[in-house]
Amino acid sequence: MLDRVITISREFGSGGRELGMKLSEKLEIPFYDKELISLTAQETNMSVTEFLNYYESIPVTEQSLEPPLYTSFSPLYEIPISDQVFLAQSRVIKSLAEKGPCIIVGRCADRVLEDSINLFIYAGIEHRIERIISLNKDLDPQLVENKIRETDRKRKDYYQYYTGCEWGKAQNYHLCLDSGLAGVEGCYQAVLSYLGHCI
Amino acid sequence: MLDRVITISREFGSGGRELGMKLSEKLEIPFYDKELISLTAQETNMSVTEFLNYYESIPVTEQSLEPPLYTSFSPLYEIPISDQVFLAQSRVIKSLAEKGPCIIVGRCADRVLEDSINLFIYAGIEHRIERIISLNKDLDPQLVENKIRETDRKRKDYYQYYTGCEWGKAQNYHLCLDSGLAGVEGCYQAVLSYLGHCI
Repeated sequence: MLDRVITISREFGSGGRELGMKLSEKLEIPFYDKELISLTAQETNMSVTEFLNYYESIPVTEQSLEPPLYTSFSPLYEIPISDQVFLAQSRVIKSLAEKGPCIIVGRCADRVLEDSINLFIYAGIEHRIERIISLNKDLDPQLVENKIRETDRKRKDYYQYYTGCEWGKAQNYHLCLDSGLAGVEGCYQAVLSYLGHCI
Repeated sequence: MLDRVITISREFGSGGRELGMKLSEKLEIPFYDKELISLTAQETNMSVTEFLNYYESIPVTEQSLEPPLYTSFSPLYEIPISDQVFLAQSRVIKSLAEKGPCIIVGRCADRVLEDSINLFIYAGIEHRIERIISLNKDLDPQLVENKIRETDRKRKDYYQYYTGCEWGKAQNYHLCLDSGLAGVEGCYQAVLSYLGHCI
């Protein structure tokens, strides 16, 4: 019986959300991806509209080039709002983890939590374009590719800024899987086999 | 039926050789690790003693700071001996791959070959010290740790020099596995599940 949180970091379009939902169903544990937006908005006492301006972004002001500490500051107005949002999100993630095993997608959860099992899923860009278009046939391949590159760059910068670690470096995760070769189903089966041997 | 070569890159002491041998036995395909030393020595027409001075090292002379091309040079004496050894080893690897599916450990085989399935296995240093000492109970833990750090540094430099790629970056491999959490057996089972879905 799994007693730990599973975090999933993912390149855009590689199937991280799909993998997380399959694991959640199989292991019968909660799944959090976009659900974290409303939970964190509540934590910050902002409206969701205001909140989304700062969500998953990094500060751009000169005085905030150094990564913030993970601990809470007081008063909160002394640190950039993006950092406050990250801290609030980290509190939400820790609070969810305290309730028991669950799946958390993105949000640097692999570094926020200390004892999670951390997965990273990725694929060559041609596989990701193909996968996204198979799910949304009206999309333009060039626009999809632009969106993939932009989102990956933002995720990489965000992870680097808030954790000081390198996004996609294998040793930061327990299992890294290319969904381009084996599909999300192959990754899912590999994760289940691996989890079956976790202490 | 698997019709491709499997390459295994590995942090020292993480169980790459053990994983390769298990896969070789299960899939009934040849396994090459240290076996490549004598095969490559034959290819270079050097004695094994002379050959080992240059094996898995990078040139230190000033004129060879640029990575060499993968193609053959003529005459060979124009390039550093370490580079000649790497080129000879690459020819041996390609020749083995042409004969059919096999397992190749290390030697930048993941970049030398174009259509291999590439694995990377690693573990926290404390797990690797424990694993090595469980296999050789007389060893001193501090000396083991020193050996691990030195060997990993050499492997990283060697990979970077000859491939121009980053050793341990997840996207360079199809599957990356931490043997510290699930053991070599857990990694082995995960690889089998993943391979079962490869196209």
